Amino acid sequence: MADCRRLVTEEICRLFDHRSEHRDVLYRLILEYPLREGKALRPTLAIATCRALGGDVEAVLPTAATLELYHNAFLVHDDVEDDSMMRRGRPTLHVEHGVPIAVNVGDAMFCLSLKPLLDNVEVVGLGPALRILETVAHMTRESVEGQAIELDWIRNNRWELEDSDYVDMVVQKTGWYSFIVPMQVGAIAAGASQEQVNELVAFGRELSVAFQITDDLLNVRADPQEYGKEIGGDLWEGKRTLILLHAVRTTSASDREQAIEILARPRPPSDRVAQVQDLLDHLVTVEELTPAGRGELEGAVWGGSTTVKTLADVQWLFDLLGRQGSIDYAAGAARRYADAAATRLDGLRWLLASPHRAVLEGLVRYVHERNR
Amino acid sequence: MADCRRLVTEEICRLFDHRSEHRDVLYRLILEYPLREGKALRPTLAIATCRALGGDVEAVLPTAATLELYHNAFLVHDDVEDDSMMRRGRPTLHVEHGVPIAVNVGDAMFCLSLKPLLDNVEVVGLGPALRILETVAHMTRESVEGQAIELDWIRNNRWELEDSDYVDMVVQKTGWYSFIVPMQVGAIAAGASQEQVNELVAFGRELSVAFQITDDLLNVRADPQEYGKEIGGDLWEGKRTLILLHAVRTTSASDREQAIEILARPRPPSDRVAQVQDLLDHLVTVEELTPAGRGELEGAVWGGSTTVKTLADVQWLFDLLGRQGSIDYAAGAARRYADAAATRLDGLRWLLASPHRAVLEGLVRYVHERNR
Repeated sequence: MADCRRLVTEEICRLFDHRSEHRDVLYRLILEYPLREGKALRPTLAIATCRALGGDVEAVLPTAATLELYHNAFLVHDDVEDDSMMRRGRPTLHVEHGVPIAVNVGDAMFCLSLKPLLDNVEVVGLGPALRILETVAHMTRESVEGQAIELDWIRNNRWELEDSDYVDMVVQKTGWYSFIVPMQVGAIAAGASQEQVNELVAFGRELSVAFQITDDLLNVRADPQEYGKEIGGDLWEGKRTLILLHAVRTTSASDREQAIEILARPRPPSDRVAQVQDLLDHLVTVEELTPAGRGELEGAVWGGSTTVKTLADVQWLFDLLGRQGSIDYAAGAARRYADAAATRLDGLRWLLASPHRAVLEGLVRYVHERNR
Repeated sequence: MADCRRLVTEEICRLFDHRSEHRDVLYRLILEYPLREGKALRPTLAIATCRALGGDVEAVLPTAATLELYHNAFLVHDDVEDDSMMRRGRPTLHVEHGVPIAVNVGDAMFCLSLKPLLDNVEVVGLGPALRILETVAHMTRESVEGQAIELDWIRNNRWELEDSDYVDMVVQKTGWYSFIVPMQVGAIAAGASQEQVNELVAFGRELSVAFQITDDLLNVRADPQEYGKEIGGDLWEGKRTLILLHAVRTTSASDREQAIEILARPRPPSDRVAQVQDLLDHLVTVEELTPAGRGELEGAVWGGSTTVKTLADVQWLFDLLGRQGSIDYAAGAARRYADAAATRLDGLRWLLASPHRAVLEGLVRYVHERNR
């Protein structure tokens, strides 16, 4: 994975860094997240699949770099949407440069992805280049639909959701662009048949769900009282995870009501508004304002809601997960999806036994090891 | 133009409205701005150019609809970036649905533009479809670079700018995607030669600058005292227009200093924060806080800046434009660009005399009539 990351980072720099004319106002910012060294999961999947089919790394590299760029574009905009403060150990782009610049940098990353995919005609030939373009067009549709569904759940505080709703959303939002399409474009670049490309859907689907549940579990492994917002961010955000859906579904009616009420509360917003709150607490004593006046003021500060989630709220949710056995439940589900993925991968005999195929097997194993 | 708007709106609906599964969470929102009936300038240019070359409207319609979708995607994100409240007489998307959903809807519009451009292979054949894709890829690069330059000027309060800086930025930010590329894709869809397609650049460049200066002039035609923020929005935003650049460049050193200081102040932010300010004024009397304490509190509310632009500030800027003759100066420049555009259009003899060519001639005339 480290090799793939290095290759892809070099390719992204090659694609964009030479445009020195506007380097400081745009291209340096485009390279900001990619240079913060993520896991490079998508390029790794693309390169491993291509090579396990006997293809050259050069054939897939521009496409792999493009997928990494799409991924980072989604991250830039996700950070704006969630008002996240940190990304890969540094302040997020909109925190450093403001929302306008961050939105435009994300747009630029989406828009600039088209060119390398068109240049692919020179790299893999016309037919495969068009198949890759069609595959990416489909991928982006799935991603934005999945994101829209999740945002809709949050906005309307929807919790009457089945596990299958969660699974469908995860496959749309991250399955296609993080797992299925990276493998598909690797296969296309290696000259795979359309049947082989189609067979990767089922494997990628199972693997993506196994991964997402594992990710969700890592997020609630530790007690929020001990770690504050670093751990348990999903509870602060009210994210619909398989874990939380299970807890809400299986608990008593009164606990369910309380859980949904807590989850509807916004999390404490970003530093600036928190700072206002601190100042209000500091400068305006309770005696100087009537309770109604203070409530009105706080309501305005918090955007119409007078209550935000507190650490006690999040601790209560965390304890609920424990009481309902939701963490064990989700770990079991992750194992089952990983098993299903392993079975699917076994069926893909045309991915030749090699260190490249072993990368895919290693991802399945990772889920099992994390969820023992 | 009304006919083009109707055709393109129908085409956009055809492309997206049938996806009923996610209609409520995504596709209804994608159609929101396009259905608010803009001018349909870009589709009109694409269709007029195509038909003036003897092409069919069907050949260019999917591409024209895609350009309109790109345009509306930029509008959705621009509204987030500028925190604009209204768009075409109704609240902006992020005001109605929140920033997260608005950012995702804009992303969806960008991402979903790829598919109709790939389907163009069926409509215009492989060669022209690929040329259109290359043209659009280039267009989006110019747009995001232009936007990045303008955001950089605002962020760093840069005013030591020449008219040529303004012209270059305008051509990049709006010239390519609003004028040059719509005509280019119309020409490609009609089977024009690459030489003909290239000749459209110079005409579109002159026309776009003439249009943008005219737009900027309309924005400062009326006295801000009379119209509040509806008119003079560019002054509130501190937008680098040819008009304002002239005024800042030609005035006395002390007025220049004052102008730049005013322009560096943020405009009063959106309703929610203004509401906090009102409440602070209402609930916290001056006696209850020391001046330092109040300044600290306001600074936090306004994001670190203790001063925002006032109506008096904007009136002062408006009066400066009058004193310096900057409005006449810019109107003269608009006329010169329109003249240059007319000369370029005269040279394009291969655009056949027809109602379609007359549309292009009418746009040049519009600039002259507005800036008499």
